[in-house]
Amino acid sequence: MEDSLTRPSSPAGLSCYMALSQLLGLTVIAMTGAWMGQYRGGIAWESSLQFNVHPLCMVIGMVFLQGDALLVYRVFRNETKRSAKILHGVLHAFALVIALVGVIAVFDYHRKKGFADMYSLHSWCGITAFSLYFIQWLMGFSFFLFPGASFSLRSRYKPQHVFFGVSLFVLSIATCLLGIKELLLFNIQATYSSFVPEGILANALGLLLIVFGLVLGYILTRDEWKRPPLAEELALSMDFKTLTKGESPSSSSQ
Amino acid sequence: MEDSLTRPSSPAGLSCYMALSQLLGLTVIAMTGAWMGQYRGGIAWESSLQFNVHPLCMVIGMVFLQGDALLVYRVFRNETKRSAKILHGVLHAFALVIALVGVIAVFDYHRKKGFADMYSLHSWCGITAFSLYFIQWLMGFSFFLFPGASFSLRSRYKPQHVFFGVSLFVLSIATCLLGIKELLLFNIQATYSSFVPEGILANALGLLLIVFGLVLGYILTRDEWKRPPLAEELALSMDFKTLTKGESPSSSSQ
Repeated sequence: MEDSLTRPSSPAGLSCYMALSQLLGLTVIAMTGAWMGQYRGGIAWESSLQFNVHPLCMVIGMVFLQGDALLVYRVFRNETKRSAKILHGVLHAFALVIALVGVIAVFDYHRKKGFADMYSLHSWCGITAFSLYFIQWLMGFSFFLFPGASFSLRSRYKPQHVFFGVSLFVLSIATCLLGIKELLLFNIQATYSSFVPEGILANALGLLLIVFGLVLGYILTRDEWKRPPLAEELALSMDFKTLTKGESPSSSSQ
Repeated sequence: MEDSLTRPSSPAGLSCYMALSQLLGLTVIAMTGAWMGQYRGGIAWESSLQFNVHPLCMVIGMVFLQGDALLVYRVFRNETKRSAKILHGVLHAFALVIALVGVIAVFDYHRKKGFADMYSLHSWCGITAFSLYFIQWLMGFSFFLFPGASFSLRSRYKPQHVFFGVSLFVLSIATCLLGIKELLLFNIQATYSSFVPEGILANALGLLLIVFGLVLGYILTRDEWKRPPLAEELALSMDFKTLTKGESPSSSSQ
């Protein structure tokens, strides 16, 4: 508990992993853009290139921004909890809006081309992930930012929110892998087995998405990298718990 | 700490989730078998049906048995730690052997048919998952079952072992999803969008694999369901820590 009160700057290991995660995140966005630009004709809304908006928006929204929103409590360790919460919610909202553009792009493209919707495993996983992500955002907002929920209700919901948050992030990456596979087999099935550059680029993108997920998962699961409560939060939380449940103050540190 | 000493039977919630996980695990194995039997001609080693050994072995080994091995410490709460460790290692060894049969089946099938190997994202992810799983098993055996490693070395390696263990399980499920997608697009690409029964069965299998992973992840991440140390382990661990590091005995409960 002493550590949390003296409040050192971010642990050195955390900073290295954070830098690595951002490098990986920007690389997967750049690689997705390069794939669409170099091998799929580029990106536009009003043409058959509309489809290419989909992979780029989903990687930016459902992978990079969603992932960065999960890291907010680790990075902004010395800000107030409320500021961290607001940034966490805003980043997830940005992610949702960008992902929505990506979802509209593919449905609109299918409609114009007369293609069927929602038959593939990628689409089933994708619509599940997107819908649950929206519900998760609404639940998070209602419990943690809207002032109505009690301290004990928040405490009980928080582990569920964290578990489903990380699960949705993992599901989003798995859905991207399915999307990569689908796009490759629709477009280069005949040449994929000859190790053509597009296939290798897309496979490498898939592996880097996995590594991005692994690095984030590692950061999020290190107990020693969790945000320690500020001195005033700790005092408030101890007082509250002592008053309401008769718990020992020492059990309130996170 | 009192709870861990009075040692109640398994928490009620844990038993329900355990039952659900086993039901889901057996269902995904049955569905994989039904898919191969009903739509892919059945399973045999000495014919073109050899390929069908691959999905079944990978789901049994890399998903069901690997997953069950992760649950050993939650289920066998009242056995000695050494017994739980041995069962954990034996289940992983079974998983590795069955997965190896699945890997040999697909390489042998490719060789006989003259198909290229190792060009797809599924194969890249799969060989990575299988190789790292073997390395993880060797590392686990060396650190935790082989008598050489010291208490402090084990304590430092354990969080890494747990993180990479769960990560490999998640990667194995993601690889199965890619395999499902690949098999569908190789075989029923023309009819997949008409919601043919094989496509729906395989998509449902994919979703159930994800739910199996979610249920296991939920069980593994509940702090209150972790195996509490036995009284004699607790005493030994406290004595050891107090002697070697001067730590307070209260910090040694898990």
